[in-house]
Amino acid sequence: MRILGLCGSLRAASINARLLRATARLAPIGIDVSMFNGLGDLSLFNPDLEGSRPANVVAFHRAVAEADALLFASPEYAHGVTGTIKNALDWLVGFEPFANKIVAVLDSSPRAHHADDALRETLRTMAAVIVESASITIPLLGAGLDEPAMVATPSIAGAIRESLRAIQLPVVSRRDTLTAEFPLG
Amino acid sequence: MRILGLCGSLRAASINARLLRATARLAPIGIDVSMFNGLGDLSLFNPDLEGSRPANVVAFHRAVAEADALLFASPEYAHGVTGTIKNALDWLVGFEPFANKIVAVLDSSPRAHHADDALRETLRTMAAVIVESASITIPLLGAGLDEPAMVATPSIAGAIRESLRAIQLPVVSRRDTLTAEFPLG
Repeated sequence: MRILGLCGSLRAASINARLLRATARLAPIGIDVSMFNGLGDLSLFNPDLEGSRPANVVAFHRAVAEADALLFASPEYAHGVTGTIKNALDWLVGFEPFANKIVAVLDSSPRAHHADDALRETLRTMAAVIVESASITIPLLGAGLDEPAMVATPSIAGAIRESLRAIQLPVVSRRDTLTAEFPLG
Repeated sequence: MRILGLCGSLRAASINARLLRATARLAPIGIDVSMFNGLGDLSLFNPDLEGSRPANVVAFHRAVAEADALLFASPEYAHGVTGTIKNALDWLVGFEPFANKIVAVLDSSPRAHHADDALRETLRTMAAVIVESASITIPLLGAGLDEPAMVATPSIAGAIRESLRAIQLPVVSRRDTLTAEFPLG
């Protein structure tokens, strides 16, 4: 099972990037969590380019298409989503493999809500399937933890493992349905 | 008086870009309205780069600093602001000349409200002064008008002229205040 992490911050010391890397470390055997590191290199979305997508967009589309689920972790900038995460989503509007994609939204700053609300509204509008039980809030902002510290903190590691378990269920259930519908596939 | 137009779409035939260009054509003598054409070339915002801003960001900052007012025109993508306009704003968070900037938001698609609400929330959070009387709604989506047609349509041209008149007032009033405070300046 492949889970692709998408981080809305490009900061090297980003809490959200650390959270996704900690999630990758905590993933059990059989679940591969990787972070897409090219969001900062994506061209800004231009509908005129959809017929001849830039190479960075093609690579992003391929990674999304190959993932069984997506894990979003993104900060709030000025009471809004970050330009980086919205730009990534703009490239996925109308990208057929994104529709019905299983997703979860990790929230590391529970005091902020504008960006989280807006991100969910956009994901719903794009027909993503948000797994609520996997979309956990982990208060990390200001805690100054790096990923080894996150992995070593039982409450945080436990919450991350719980999120992974929760996102796994609909992926497996969807596979079972596909196998039942196409038993020779 | 310099007004800088910022368009959230990079599409060549963008209705919002046409609206800003129509506004430039309709501006009376003494008001220079120009569109910043480099939003699509801006790097994606990275806080780590704020100490050594890319050249495209420096040019954007200069244009914003030199403008007496900003005019936003941006579409809604998937019930959200466009990545392009939010990325531009992300580079202006903490950019001192942006604080207290006089701005107006032109809305060409009155049926959509998520992006307009989110853009205004972000602008308020960034301490911009939104001139409501200049922030007009002009139903253009689906009308297929280019800018000569907008200029030639009395209801549209009239609304644009009204917006320009309204944004002019606080700019002039602010200048008068500055002149009164610094009479030798």
